[in-house]
Amino acid sequence: MRVLILGGDGYLGWPTALRFSARGHEVSVVDNFSRRRWHTEHGSASLTPIADFDRRIEAWHEVSGEQIRSYVGAVEDGDFLDEVVAETRPEAVVHYGQQPSAPYSMLSRERAVETQYTNVIGNLNLLFSLRDHVPDCHLVKLGTMGEYGQPNIDIEEGYIEIEHKGRKDTLPFPKLPGSLYHCSKVHDSTNIHFACRTWGLRATDLNQGIVYGVETEETARDERLITRFDYDELFGTVLNRFCLQAVIGHPLTVYGAGHQTRGFLNIRDTLACVELAVANPAARGDFRVFNQFTEQFSVLELAERVKLAAEHLGYSVEIQHLENPRVEKEEHYYNAIHTKLLDLGLEPTMLGEELVESMIHAIERHKGNAIESSIDPHTRWNPAKSPAAQA
Amino acid sequence: MRVLILGGDGYLGWPTALRFSARGHEVSVVDNFSRRRWHTEHGSASLTPIADFDRRIEAWHEVSGEQIRSYVGAVEDGDFLDEVVAETRPEAVVHYGQQPSAPYSMLSRERAVETQYTNVIGNLNLLFSLRDHVPDCHLVKLGTMGEYGQPNIDIEEGYIEIEHKGRKDTLPFPKLPGSLYHCSKVHDSTNIHFACRTWGLRATDLNQGIVYGVETEETARDERLITRFDYDELFGTVLNRFCLQAVIGHPLTVYGAGHQTRGFLNIRDTLACVELAVANPAARGDFRVFNQFTEQFSVLELAERVKLAAEHLGYSVEIQHLENPRVEKEEHYYNAIHTKLLDLGLEPTMLGEELVESMIHAIERHKGNAIESSIDPHTRWNPAKSPAAQA
Repeated sequence: MRVLILGGDGYLGWPTALRFSARGHEVSVVDNFSRRRWHTEHGSASLTPIADFDRRIEAWHEVSGEQIRSYVGAVEDGDFLDEVVAETRPEAVVHYGQQPSAPYSMLSRERAVETQYTNVIGNLNLLFSLRDHVPDCHLVKLGTMGEYGQPNIDIEEGYIEIEHKGRKDTLPFPKLPGSLYHCSKVHDSTNIHFACRTWGLRATDLNQGIVYGVETEETARDERLITRFDYDELFGTVLNRFCLQAVIGHPLTVYGAGHQTRGFLNIRDTLACVELAVANPAARGDFRVFNQFTEQFSVLELAERVKLAAEHLGYSVEIQHLENPRVEKEEHYYNAIHTKLLDLGLEPTMLGEELVESMIHAIERHKGNAIESSIDPHTRWNPAKSPAAQA
Repeated sequence: MRVLILGGDGYLGWPTALRFSARGHEVSVVDNFSRRRWHTEHGSASLTPIADFDRRIEAWHEVSGEQIRSYVGAVEDGDFLDEVVAETRPEAVVHYGQQPSAPYSMLSRERAVETQYTNVIGNLNLLFSLRDHVPDCHLVKLGTMGEYGQPNIDIEEGYIEIEHKGRKDTLPFPKLPGSLYHCSKVHDSTNIHFACRTWGLRATDLNQGIVYGVETEETARDERLITRFDYDELFGTVLNRFCLQAVIGHPLTVYGAGHQTRGFLNIRDTLACVELAVANPAARGDFRVFNQFTEQFSVLELAERVKLAAEHLGYSVEIQHLENPRVEKEEHYYNAIHTKLLDLGLEPTMLGEELVESMIHAIERHKGNAIESSIDPHTRWNPAKSPAAQA
């Protein structure tokens, strides 16, 4: 199958490209390296030493014998993206080519605008190119569980049947996004749904939980195939950050009370989910939404698990509660349905102590690269709230 | 009160500026004349001969003795807008400064991107400027009833209480926008709601129905104060178009069966609603949504009313059903709640035969300006659907 991966140089995009290539698909990737640039601009970097784009692709060819075609450019550049789609004629597009950080989107007006521009306009360009060149192509779009926010009812997968004043309809699940980044993902969902209803495109929105993990089957095959691993305040996800903090002797930084609950999944399960979505495409005209995570945890629960595992490995670990830089409920109901991917055959990787230990071991090999000053949060969701002393 | 009006050169923005100025408020207006430019690019123009921005403002000063401050620039230019907000320190902002046409947004990828860029980024810039300079300012944003689409349940005003699996929450009403323009308005609502929740801004989203009418109390005071009147396929709203068609002897063009039902209101009621919203501001942190229309009609019903009124004036009128260029349900349930503005004291102007006749008389004075070639629809929502013969 011809698979086009947007954002193919990223934390998830690169391993996804390798996975589809390893399975014998004809893989093309697009990236403009904005993720690498954003880290440079903010004094952070991947813990793992990632090879340049061309070098990774060459290394993969050496290791596997497979070719990955690469296109360097921005999805926001509609003419560029249109040419790529016209030339590669994908049967599936996996779209990771976005600014993926909530705190980054809250840094300033300029960064918020950059986020919504990159994400919304890039995705809108893609919808037109699919319509005009490959209307039968299946769009697999990475969304986020953070689109739903923290409603006081169970979170369904994309839609909810509403009975109201004696009538009934199944409608998009209401959204309460938690940052301007999350807003951009809601905008994308609205645009894609419209394109499916109006142009008969087919799409699957993978509303992903928070991903953790260092490596996948393919990235582990050669040092040069390693994927990026971030732990900084802007791009680091919470469990990855906790593991790195445990290794370098930095307190595990919990924002506020830590009772915020979210869905989580292992990077290996991200790939499994994307594979399942691509192997089981949506019907023409269908905008399908899957909630893509395997387990729910509170942030404090995660910190405690990492502390326990790290202590068993001989580390001494402290948990530190920082004033929460975000505006979010710390005590709230949270129950998100996530059965559709299980129904397609997903076998979840559960977060056991062994898994945390293996992450810690993988991190130990690169701990010399850690930039400690990039870890603690400086970005406030509401700068008008006076920065009280940190607990 | 210091009132800032974005899009103050437009069909509604200009009369709104005059209204607030006539009431003794300190009015500033922003525009970059993109609406005038879009018409020039597409071979259409206002039926009414509208004066240049500076000339209108001078004329108003002559007629009323009041000053309106003007700023020429784009809301998409964040630095420009930020300076305007910092300088004018508005207590209320009325935001009309957007690309307002659904068909325009469906013309091409470039026009869709322009629409979402202008609308979403302009509005996002505004939210930051309000946060940073005048967090107590009340944002009155023009939304549209078209954000809701055609759900099979009653449309509430912005929110709906949902009972689900034994739990309950009041959440944003689900949206099924009918064009990429309507999507952009949904995006705006999502961003504004977020800004209210996170930064404590105060906002009222006026989800407006389809506006009709030629003049308001203030624009009628002098020929040079007249507002624009559009009837072309891109920017003309349906009732205005029907009245013009009756006058120039063009069949009234109904898209499809014409049973599509929508909310409508008179331009005089638009001003009354905006005044009511400004006079009764939302609380800090509150994102308030009003459904702003006075009556529901099907498109065919409207055509029949115009035909009847025009025939009483001696015109001979034909109704023509064109193949529907839009993707929308032609037979559907539609019942939209609209009590909040009535509760604040709105006294609706109802669409009686006399009102249609007065519109026809106002149009007659300018009928020599009509560009007939700009009327019939050429923009298809789904270009892949073969253009069948028109009925």
